[in-house]
Amino acid sequence: MSTVMQEMHTDIGLVNTIVARSSLSFINGEKGILEYVGYGIDDLARQSTFEETTYLLWNRRLPSRVELAEFNTLIRSNYDLSETLWDMIVSLPRDASPMHALRTLTSALALEDPAADDPSIEANTRKSIVMLAKMPALIAGFDRHRKGLDLIRPNVEATIAENFLYMLTGKKPTERMSRAMDICLILHADHGFNASTFASLVTISTLSDIYSAVTTAIGTLKGPLHGGANQGVMYMLQEIESIDAVEEYVLNKFANKERIMGFGHRVYKSNDPRATYLKTFAEGIAQDTGNIDLFNKSQRIEEVMDREVGSKGIYPNVDFYSATTYFSLGIDLDLFTPLFAMSRVSGWTAHCMEYLAENRLIRPRCDYVGPHEQEYVSISQR
Amino acid sequence: MSTVMQEMHTDIGLVNTIVARSSLSFINGEKGILEYVGYGIDDLARQSTFEETTYLLWNRRLPSRVELAEFNTLIRSNYDLSETLWDMIVSLPRDASPMHALRTLTSALALEDPAADDPSIEANTRKSIVMLAKMPALIAGFDRHRKGLDLIRPNVEATIAENFLYMLTGKKPTERMSRAMDICLILHADHGFNASTFASLVTISTLSDIYSAVTTAIGTLKGPLHGGANQGVMYMLQEIESIDAVEEYVLNKFANKERIMGFGHRVYKSNDPRATYLKTFAEGIAQDTGNIDLFNKSQRIEEVMDREVGSKGIYPNVDFYSATTYFSLGIDLDLFTPLFAMSRVSGWTAHCMEYLAENRLIRPRCDYVGPHEQEYVSISQR
Repeated sequence: MSTVMQEMHTDIGLVNTIVARSSLSFINGEKGILEYVGYGIDDLARQSTFEETTYLLWNRRLPSRVELAEFNTLIRSNYDLSETLWDMIVSLPRDASPMHALRTLTSALALEDPAADDPSIEANTRKSIVMLAKMPALIAGFDRHRKGLDLIRPNVEATIAENFLYMLTGKKPTERMSRAMDICLILHADHGFNASTFASLVTISTLSDIYSAVTTAIGTLKGPLHGGANQGVMYMLQEIESIDAVEEYVLNKFANKERIMGFGHRVYKSNDPRATYLKTFAEGIAQDTGNIDLFNKSQRIEEVMDREVGSKGIYPNVDFYSATTYFSLGIDLDLFTPLFAMSRVSGWTAHCMEYLAENRLIRPRCDYVGPHEQEYVSISQR
Repeated sequence: MSTVMQEMHTDIGLVNTIVARSSLSFINGEKGILEYVGYGIDDLARQSTFEETTYLLWNRRLPSRVELAEFNTLIRSNYDLSETLWDMIVSLPRDASPMHALRTLTSALALEDPAADDPSIEANTRKSIVMLAKMPALIAGFDRHRKGLDLIRPNVEATIAENFLYMLTGKKPTERMSRAMDICLILHADHGFNASTFASLVTISTLSDIYSAVTTAIGTLKGPLHGGANQGVMYMLQEIESIDAVEEYVLNKFANKERIMGFGHRVYKSNDPRATYLKTFAEGIAQDTGNIDLFNKSQRIEEVMDREVGSKGIYPNVDFYSATTYFSLGIDLDLFTPLFAMSRVSGWTAHCMEYLAENRLIRPRCDYVGPHEQEYVSISQR
């Protein structure tokens, strides 16, 4: 239980403040539980799809067969970009970081939507579908543009995961590759009131529009203390020369009081429930794509970490095996965070729509600690 | 005094929560005081400039003559946009809302900055100057593009206020017009932890970059519960046919329990200290530009409101006279909020730089009220 505060109080970082109710995701960090609307994340990863999971988050129930089919059709009919958007992608500086590009292009989606500011729930659902459906084309399109490759139009017969890999590589992915991508999308779709979700709620709480809210969330996810962390795992794996070098590398990091990327989580004090199923998949994909050495290195890091700090509740988190998975799928390191956004847009929009139903402007206070009543001296006297 | 909370508690809207210390702006709503770093807002409006006020907010002291001259030179050398940006402006859909355009174009500034992600204070100051200096060109450029007019390059001999009016209209503004614009920029430069400023802090608290933070702030300011309110005053003034129709209009609104736009403020329970000096200026500008009827209508509304609800502490706020001023300057109604952003970028960046000095990730909690342990039934069984 928690107290309801009616007097002014201080909570830097808001670690102890509940800012709203939600029935989207439940996290129990002690027990290693993550549920979306009551469904265990491992069940969803094994049996659901990203599209169905998004339906669940938006409607707070699983769809019937007909509803899911209709939802998929609606999403796919929104895959393609307008000519203006394709042109904008190829006009962007090639050396820009993909997260800056994704934030800008997502913001630009609002420009061609005549109902961008319509606050109705129907309009917000439609706009959310636009963003969910088009983000893969924005990310893959920019990646091909910066590499000097021709842009590839979406395949409207494919799932979001398949379609993304197809637009990125120009090749139809294998069943296992699509499934691995889909699982990563499911696992990252929502996670309570993290910083990007919360930032999007502050934006929407002024009754601004949901394109603005998602643009906010992308800019927030980008930070190294949030989504920006996932590519760090891969930098580490590349830094370690071979499986035999793992032990020394890890112990050296400990000696220098440095962190091992991809281990531990602010919330989870036992297993990160998102890592379990992904690990088995990461292995299969690494095998298929000739990256088993990389997987074995990950595996060895986990063993050394378990021996050294497992008793302290420090386990691999979702970033640890998603890094190996994305890399094996041939995805550039600086696309890992954009992929996180491509998944989390599902949760961001779900939270915005939920919050709007009982909207309240989010406006905290600051404690003013500066001077008072300073006398203004004219510049000619200074 | 306030308590420091170490136990979980609930505060929807964060109305009673202090989330950080700040020495930028001090507001006393009861007494009608607003100070920037201890300098009264009325002193600044009467004697300072927007550039100097920005220097004050960024450095927490007024500049010397030499420092101010150098600061002005630096800002002016950043007025112009790259060819990529000018091209992007003319590629945007003409019917897009200016706030969506400004958010997208500000986000795009990061794409051509090779050091966009450099977190040093020097880099953040440089990036803040880029945004402060270029926003006028983004707003004026988009407005001319949508009207089918040629875009106008900045005048590097002019102040921010002059330069904006010049790029918007193609004419050199009068001294009084520039001064009116400058005063509006000073008055809107900062205002504590309002929603847009707070949203930008949530973004920067993940150690994301300051372009992302300002993009967040623009999207948040856009909402009708925040910056989006200022154009409402003008819609109202246009709705009232003549000065003789004012009384009936106001009384009718009261009878229908509707709000009169531009009156009252969540924070100020007495005079809004930003409205005082602006009012005298609004009158002069209205006179000069043949809009005195409009000013007289405002004046009459104020009289009726004072008679009816003045005793309840409901006075005209800053929006009330900035609306008349902007309109008299020939500025379109849907540019009022972009102008607010063009000013507030000064405070947003000041707060981000201040917060980063003692950064702490902002991550609140939500109270999960949904179901648990739901059994996943395969789609084929549904």
